[in-house]
Amino acid sequence: MSPPPRSATVPRPTLSESQKALDASVAEARRMGVSLSCAVLDVRGDLVALVRMDDASFLTVSLAEGKALSSALFGMPSSALGRMAASPFFASLNASVQNRMVPAQGAVPIVREHRVIGAIGCSGGAPPQDEAAAKAGLAAL
Amino acid sequence: MSPPPRSATVPRPTLSESQKALDASVAEARRMGVSLSCAVLDVRGDLVALVRMDDASFLTVSLAEGKALSSALFGMPSSALGRMAASPFFASLNASVQNRMVPAQGAVPIVREHRVIGAIGCSGGAPPQDEAAAKAGLAAL
Amino acid sequence: MSPPPRSATVPRPTLSESQKALDASVAEARRMGVSLSCAVLDVRGDLVALVRMDDASFLTVSLAEGKALSSALFGMPSSALGRMAASPFFASLNASVQNRMVPAQGAVPIVREHRVIGAIGCSGGAPPQDEAAAKAGLAAL
Amino acid sequence: MSPPPRSATVPRPTLSESQKALDASVAEARRMGVSLSCAVLDVRGDLVALVRMDDASFLTVSLAEGKALSSALFGMPSSALGRMAASPFFASLNASVQNRMVPAQGAVPIVREHRVIGAIGCSGGAPPQDEAAAKAGLAAL
Repeated sequence: MSPPPRSATVPRPTLSESQKALDASVAEARRMGVSLSCAVLDVRGDLVALVRMDDASFLTVSLAEGKALSSALFGMPSSALGRMAASPFFASLNASVQNRMVPAQGAVPIVREHRVIGAIGCSGGAPPQDEAAAKAGLAAL
Repeated sequence: MSPPPRSATVPRPTLSESQKALDASVAEARRMGVSLSCAVLDVRGDLVALVRMDDASFLTVSLAEGKALSSALFGMPSSALGRMAASPFFASLNASVQNRMVPAQGAVPIVREHRVIGAIGCSGGAPPQDEAAAKAGLAAL
Repeated sequence: MSPPPRSATVPRPTLSESQKALDASVAEARRMGVSLSCAVLDVRGDLVALVRMDDASFLTVSLAEGKALSSALFGMPSSALGRMAASPFFASLNASVQNRMVPAQGAVPIVREHRVIGAIGCSGGAPPQDEAAAKAGLAAL
Repeated sequence: MSPPPRSATVPRPTLSESQKALDASVAEARRMGVSLSCAVLDVRGDLVALVRMDDASFLTVSLAEGKALSSALFGMPSSALGRMAASPFFASLNASVQNRMVPAQGAVPIVREHRVIGAIGCSGGAPPQDEAAAKAGLAAL
């Protein structure tokens, strides 16, 4: 039996560039003196790469992913979800992704040729610090 | 505020060709004298189009989707999952997609340029009839 | 052994007319320049037919279904759920259907001989656009 | 108000050494010509770092984590779970971690000073390839 054909690829940042982005996020976190988890997701909201710094709690892992998920699915910074995050509509939407979205500051979309291809998000510091680390990662992409 | 950028597209059959495929599946089902649901999914396992014939039970909807999901994610006919479907490994895998996969005959992958871009699956008849309808749809793509 | 008797049919639009309705919804979406998913459900809230346009996100699939579900179960436009959507009563009701209802504008009930037999709902544009597409579909039924 | 004290650290490989391990796993995967996801977890089963290669499916992410989870919690290679994986006991245990354990070959525990401090697991190739990549990562720790 021949092996099945490979699957077509969901749009995403490459692993190599995602790792560079996460290195930049971690460097920014160290500069700020905080311990974060940061995650890069593809456009469908699936993980490409994730790091958790040595002093960061396990909770920061799912929070970093959840912020990046919000950002990837809405195509905007997770901080911009604002009032929508408290609406029944957001609750419904979140239920459709097993309530994994975290509508809080700390993630930004990754855009290439005018199309969202994923997002990078961080958690573990104050929300503006999380966003600063995510933006440092984005800048390195 | 300007609107967020559009998201890059997950590989998939177009809606137009998916509808043609489903029309062919329904025609084949009528020819066989059975009432089916049939579904076309993208490579990530999300719906592109679905039809339920007038005498088909609601259960056939999730079964058609579940067979197509198995086929899209494994890149092979759902009938070929065979022994794997009874393994703890399959159970684990299925848990990671909320147990929505249905490892039973009736779905085939959609391949383009040697890459899987989705799947079409049917439910409501005997398993070989479901597969025959799915294959009729595939042939129309 | 003779085969078991067929099940009685839950009231619903036929597949043929549901497809016509969805074609009209898609045409209206194109006219407005938006990419939507649209779904037709029966009176029990189960899918009859669903389409996702080529540029619509996977999220629009469950949102279109969820709006149509709200509309079918309440027998009114999903936009009319208004304040009820934020009430603990709605949350309880929604829990009983696995939180699949989406109480947001974009779906209208399908009525025949003074009885609700289903609903049609759309998602992917601004809420009034979603409703306009759903109504275009309803008009084609 | 002074900030709350920091939490004690759950035993784990450092982020820096986890990244080195994952680089080695990816190098071994490239050598074998397969596309994998690989994950390093701490002793509690929480992620320290994860990478998904450019052609690996989203499913490999949860499978790599799930194998590493089995390995970290049992303190043995996931291949050694053998018959236990099919037992009702394993099913119960797995239910207590939301069925996230994947009892299949591809992960090995990380031991330091005779104590398990985590695990590394891979998914995406044949099971022996997954394990070979995990072991290459372990050797780099």
